[in-house]
Amino acid sequence: MSADASAHVWIPKPVNGYKAVEMRATAVDDRAKPGVSKWELDTPALCVDLDKMEKNVAFLQASLKKNGLASRPHAKTHKTAAIAKYQLSTGSIGICCAKLTEAEALVASGVDRILMTTGNLSAGKIRRAMSIRKAHPDFIQAVDYEPNARDLNDAAREAGIIADVVIDVAVGTRSGIPAGDGALKLAQLVDTLPNLKLRGMLSYDGAVQHAKGFANRKATALSAMEPNIETYNGMKKSGLNTEIFSGGGSGTYNIMHHVPGFTDVQAGSYLFMDMQYLAIGSEDGNAVFTDFAPSLTVIATVVNNRFPRSLTTDAGAKALTLNVPTAGVIGEPGIAYNAGSDEFGVLRFSSPLSKEYKIGDKLEVIVPHCDPVVNEYDHMYGIRNGKVEVVWDVTARGCSQ
Amino acid sequence: MSADASAHVWIPKPVNGYKAVEMRATAVDDRAKPGVSKWELDTPALCVDLDKMEKNVAFLQASLKKNGLASRPHAKTHKTAAIAKYQLSTGSIGICCAKLTEAEALVASGVDRILMTTGNLSAGKIRRAMSIRKAHPDFIQAVDYEPNARDLNDAAREAGIIADVVIDVAVGTRSGIPAGDGALKLAQLVDTLPNLKLRGMLSYDGAVQHAKGFANRKATALSAMEPNIETYNGMKKSGLNTEIFSGGGSGTYNIMHHVPGFTDVQAGSYLFMDMQYLAIGSEDGNAVFTDFAPSLTVIATVVNNRFPRSLTTDAGAKALTLNVPTAGVIGEPGIAYNAGSDEFGVLRFSSPLSKEYKIGDKLEVIVPHCDPVVNEYDHMYGIRNGKVEVVWDVTARGCSQ
Repeated sequence: MSADASAHVWIPKPVNGYKAVEMRATAVDDRAKPGVSKWELDTPALCVDLDKMEKNVAFLQASLKKNGLASRPHAKTHKTAAIAKYQLSTGSIGICCAKLTEAEALVASGVDRILMTTGNLSAGKIRRAMSIRKAHPDFIQAVDYEPNARDLNDAAREAGIIADVVIDVAVGTRSGIPAGDGALKLAQLVDTLPNLKLRGMLSYDGAVQHAKGFANRKATALSAMEPNIETYNGMKKSGLNTEIFSGGGSGTYNIMHHVPGFTDVQAGSYLFMDMQYLAIGSEDGNAVFTDFAPSLTVIATVVNNRFPRSLTTDAGAKALTLNVPTAGVIGEPGIAYNAGSDEFGVLRFSSPLSKEYKIGDKLEVIVPHCDPVVNEYDHMYGIRNGKVEVVWDVTARGCSQ
Repeated sequence: MSADASAHVWIPKPVNGYKAVEMRATAVDDRAKPGVSKWELDTPALCVDLDKMEKNVAFLQASLKKNGLASRPHAKTHKTAAIAKYQLSTGSIGICCAKLTEAEALVASGVDRILMTTGNLSAGKIRRAMSIRKAHPDFIQAVDYEPNARDLNDAAREAGIIADVVIDVAVGTRSGIPAGDGALKLAQLVDTLPNLKLRGMLSYDGAVQHAKGFANRKATALSAMEPNIETYNGMKKSGLNTEIFSGGGSGTYNIMHHVPGFTDVQAGSYLFMDMQYLAIGSEDGNAVFTDFAPSLTVIATVVNNRFPRSLTTDAGAKALTLNVPTAGVIGEPGIAYNAGSDEFGVLRFSSPLSKEYKIGDKLEVIVPHCDPVVNEYDHMYGIRNGKVEVVWDVTARGCSQ
């Protein structure tokens, strides 16, 4: 499957090869325009088409606004301070972070309206979270466990602050405290602890984001949220603060407004898209999810063409991570791309391709799943009209702790 | 399956949490002994048990020596200058690199006996490879394509050097020039080009490394090498230099000496092991590959235990990459570890575990496949007797270009 079959695949030879460090050396500021063609980049090269990404940002904002919701995009997808700042400057009310080191890296690069969607369990991490909160009053910490709430309260007192907290209420069986009495009691506890300030609750359903077919996805998402809505109502009835009721993602951004009291969507992948999201289907019945344009690609070089019905590229597991679903080569829907080798992509096809690929030719690939792919690269190239406009550091790359 | 069921899984609470940067701040030199328990590290933490790794290195060296071969370990596995230096100091004749940026990073950290196992195709990469060669006469470059050999010769002339070259001859259908007349002609061409010096050939069979069962692996490996042996004989008969005939890996290190003229093995994973290699079986008939000890692990924290027959950890796709084969929890063979979520490991089990896991408890995990996992981390902790002895930078992490 290719979502963008009209794109070019042919590139002129010879290619010179530019490193990110060389591009930055010529840059005068963050919006430098080196003007090098994306086909000249050292490969594998992580690229984001800026027109498409900006369109995705605008579309999400407009769609959520129409439905009375805000966006609080998840930085775990892009890990890039420049993109977080762009999201905040275009109307997002905050940025979510999954890991403490991710939050620390973004804070150090000037992103401060951060909601940490997972708890910090060790004494060291709790202290560090509270030291972010001390310097940045808009920092909000999720909690899903009573002893952790007490530890957090102690750390906040030690830091001399009253820390903002949301309760992470599980949807499904992965993270968060199960909905119901336990969650309500935890919210009540947080409300009584002197150095914590309850701000509301989170309910993120990871599993439903990739459910195929809009009607199915909507029914599944809303049914899974029923116990959480009860917990939300219980919190409200108890007089607890519910100003934040956050969750949802790129697959449910246009569903969550049906949840009473819901305030903001934590979408991440909407920026970039990937083969996984392209396959979930749109509200209009299209089997391809066309709401957002696939802006994120990896440029790869053909390193072998001498075996029948096969090409080898320089982009394998370390360039594309997950092998399922397979990567998609733009313009070549007949290619099955196996990224299971560490250093090589092995491409097989049974019918003729759109052109004959020579050794040294390049391909543009839509990645299997965007988040872990971005996490492989120290920088990404911002591309406009096929040319490099900016080289971004992936600020929080590898910050999984 | 667990290869080391005797290891501890219980750890004392509370855990403080140490960051790599804190550990390095207390370190006085490369072999600093912070003495912190591995269970106190910020998780997910990439750890290598130094006793096991050193034993693996010694075992490979002894085994290859007995069979008349040398080792030229592949740095694509560890990407770590400190480990490359250890390998060179314990008898390896050189280090292999898969990508130019990997070689550049290791060279910059003082590793110089490098063989690049893949060609560099762009003009920029060719020039950079020749500038490594100019500064480090032990640098050897693989070539598998006639125009590339001519480009390399031009770049070597431009750099004022005569560059050492090996021909990469394919085994299977992934990388390298197919064995036979074409390969022989390429070797003859390299031999005639004035600024290249032919040193021999490579033949690495990636697919056979994980073939299950030693007898099957041996038969498959040797049969796949037959056309390459013919090419080697052809080179020899033509009077070409064949002083290097390199290939093989951790799955075939004790097979390749049956290949006439073979000189050295490019094993990488033998240092660390992983679930994929543990499953290939040993020469003694054991279904577990016991030749090398699983030294590489990731420490993870339990973040949820409130759903039936399930635990959630903080180590998902960004901490363990490939989800197949699944990761193995040491001491808990009954756990099926799904690392498909970006930030979370989802562990399911049907029979009771060895203990009751609380939120905040830690687990030690053998990774699915070591190479891409190491490539996720900026540093790894060298552990001896359960305590941190050293924190290593993963020098060439993310150097996939």
